Amino acid sequence: MTWTLPRYPLLIVISGPPGVGKDSVLRRMKELGYPFHFVVTATDRPPRPGEVHGVDYFFLSTEEFLRLEREGELLEHAIVYGEHKGVPKQQVRDAFASGKDVVMRVDVQGAATIRQLAPEAVLIFLTAESEEVLIRRLTERGTETPEKLAERIGKIRWEMNCMENFDYVVVNREGELDRAVAQIAAIIEAEHCRVHPRRVQL
Amino acid sequence: MTWTLPRYPLLIVISGPPGVGKDSVLRRMKELGYPFHFVVTATDRPPRPGEVHGVDYFFLSTEEFLRLEREGELLEHAIVYGEHKGVPKQQVRDAFASGKDVVMRVDVQGAATIRQLAPEAVLIFLTAESEEVLIRRLTERGTETPEKLAERIGKIRWEMNCMENFDYVVVNREGELDRAVAQIAAIIEAEHCRVHPRRVQL
Repeated sequence: MTWTLPRYPLLIVISGPPGVGKDSVLRRMKELGYPFHFVVTATDRPPRPGEVHGVDYFFLSTEEFLRLEREGELLEHAIVYGEHKGVPKQQVRDAFASGKDVVMRVDVQGAATIRQLAPEAVLIFLTAESEEVLIRRLTERGTETPEKLAERIGKIRWEMNCMENFDYVVVNREGELDRAVAQIAAIIEAEHCRVHPRRVQL
Repeated sequence: MTWTLPRYPLLIVISGPPGVGKDSVLRRMKELGYPFHFVVTATDRPPRPGEVHGVDYFFLSTEEFLRLEREGELLEHAIVYGEHKGVPKQQVRDAFASGKDVVMRVDVQGAATIRQLAPEAVLIFLTAESEEVLIRRLTERGTETPEKLAERIGKIRWEMNCMENFDYVVVNREGELDRAVAQIAAIIEAEHCRVHPRRVQL
């Protein structure tokens, strides 16, 4: 007699305030070759310099985006600073069908939507070691107008309070990106060891 | 402003049917130098060849053991195959005070007691890949009388059903001890990332 423990693919959601390093963490996970499916988000905002369609985002027209939304084919969709962002469901279903864990990055607002649509998702809150660090990162990015920057800073405290709704919190300390990535990997490994696994159905 | 996330020491309980490799896993964790406090269990059974007092077990007289039990100073205590086994609480308190996670090994019966006395303990169920492997390991150990062996085999199925009461399950596959150990380490790392940490109070 052989016991076979079921292994369900996980939906891993990495979120947190802007400037906390969500993109850096995801990029590093890809570099390290983790066997996950990394979701490509759809957006109707224009590409920033260097961003590639299908890699960084799917850059859709607002019309295309709204069609997916109408058809209920977005796992989460939100208007963030006047731009649409969302995750096409089919991509997640396809990855699950091939047995792959799915890793996605969303802002805090989007994580709330995921929790509703996929309560069994694993929600990881990425944060910096202090508010100062977050604000400095936002400033250094240099892609925001002063008005947008002020708006974002004002949201940081509100978003920090949202941490309570997440499963895990990972601190992305300056210069310790690999440590944050290792913690996320440990969380995923541990979740696969749960006696009562989280089984996402979309 | 710096956010400080609290870090509470964990009580990690590694359990599972006899023959599953609990001792091997613990020994390997010690070899690898994990910074945990590994509990030394107290027992009134006589030492097996090579076992060292204070390292493998605290070998107490039955009288000494029962005094600790009377004073409520045992985290778990059970009579297993006619022998007393138990974990002195003070050892765990001391380790917690120094900020160390505590790792302990108990049989399945003992894990049930821990769950009652310390509901916030992290319970890990160690299992083999099949019943055949478990029975073979018990036979090879050669330390049991045929009667005791038969009794243990009879309990395996019952104990497998106890898995439902645990938080995590780790399969200790033949020749993959380090993989099981790595999974346990990942579980401990992940537990420290929980937004709502398990805080054991004894």
